[in-house]
Amino acid sequence: MTYFTTIQRTHSNARISKIVRHGGLVYLCGQTAKGSPSADAGIAEQTAEVLARVDALLAEAGSDRSRILTTTIYLRDIAADFAGMNAVWEAWLADRKAIAPARTTVQAALATASLRVEMTVVAIENERSPNPQGS
Amino acid sequence: MTYFTTIQRTHSNARISKIVRHGGLVYLCGQTAKGSPSADAGIAEQTAEVLARVDALLAEAGSDRSRILTTTIYLRDIAADFAGMNAVWEAWLADRKAIAPARTTVQAALATASLRVEMTVVAIENERSPNPQGS
Amino acid sequence: MTYFTTIQRTHSNARISKIVRHGGLVYLCGQTAKGSPSADAGIAEQTAEVLARVDALLAEAGSDRSRILTTTIYLRDIAADFAGMNAVWEAWLADRKAIAPARTTVQAALATASLRVEMTVVAIENERSPNPQGS
Repeated sequence: MTYFTTIQRTHSNARISKIVRHGGLVYLCGQTAKGSPSADAGIAEQTAEVLARVDALLAEAGSDRSRILTTTIYLRDIAADFAGMNAVWEAWLADRKAIAPARTTVQAALATASLRVEMTVVAIENERSPNPQGS
Repeated sequence: MTYFTTIQRTHSNARISKIVRHGGLVYLCGQTAKGSPSADAGIAEQTAEVLARVDALLAEAGSDRSRILTTTIYLRDIAADFAGMNAVWEAWLADRKAIAPARTTVQAALATASLRVEMTVVAIENERSPNPQGS
Repeated sequence: MTYFTTIQRTHSNARISKIVRHGGLVYLCGQTAKGSPSADAGIAEQTAEVLARVDALLAEAGSDRSRILTTTIYLRDIAADFAGMNAVWEAWLADRKAIAPARTTVQAALATASLRVEMTVVAIENERSPNPQGS
């Protein structure tokens, strides 16, 4: 049987694809700090690493942080880490004006006990201006 | 560089946009009761407030509760509050026939300890009938 | 007032639609083992049941497991059940090459205490090859 699909998957293994693209949208798998961070890797450090990985995957998919539609953020300890995560998040968004996505942040334990934050991102692919020179 | 996007964001600040619209879809940020509800604001009261805010944001985005595709519901205490949330939820949907979205409900602690419920909603923009008078 | 929508809902009740279709996408409500599994229904058994229900609903919606864009997986006890869930998940995906979706897995208590796993799936409807015989 001929297998046909318009879904584009990148960095696929038996369990997960890091990037899935379809219909002009880019879906990233949940992003965490790599492997098992040391127990004392703080929320600022882990959030920065997560966002760097989001940047890299979005770039690969022809998108960028200004094109995120939604982000779901999971924090292992929301009371302890909400403010610390937000400080890094807001600095990351601040390079451009008003690009914040629709966001939901809740508490959840993650796959490895040392992980403090995980983010699930849906973005759009890069759009070219119909009139790039302006008028 | 010319910055161009077809993403429309409303009520944006440094952290979040309450409404993001793209491709005919409306994405709301996670909705909770406002600020820090008093510790004894029950699940019925908080659910009603969340749904009123969903109504208001969807109206602003040219949508309404009959056009929701998916809702993710987070409850701080699912054993205690599942039934109470559902009673208000079902009454809210009951104004129209068969409009219930695909829904997922799980337990999660939320950004403020007094919050009992948060909802993430994806809807479609209002559609005009191709034949509004019927035939 | 004439009510018009292009949203297609299946298995709808006052609370939920099991399948929602719109714009070529299929949204399933959170899938769990049926009813209240016995307290000793293990993670392998529950994961297999969840995936069988996903298969059945996707088939009804004109889709299948090779057309899933994203899956969010909630485990009641991620430390205990992550490996067991993954074993069943990977076997389920292994019938075809490289079909893994963008996935996020977090810990969350579910609607019934005996439930160990819940999955939320977004897929695309079946596509016909523009050139089904190959060339």
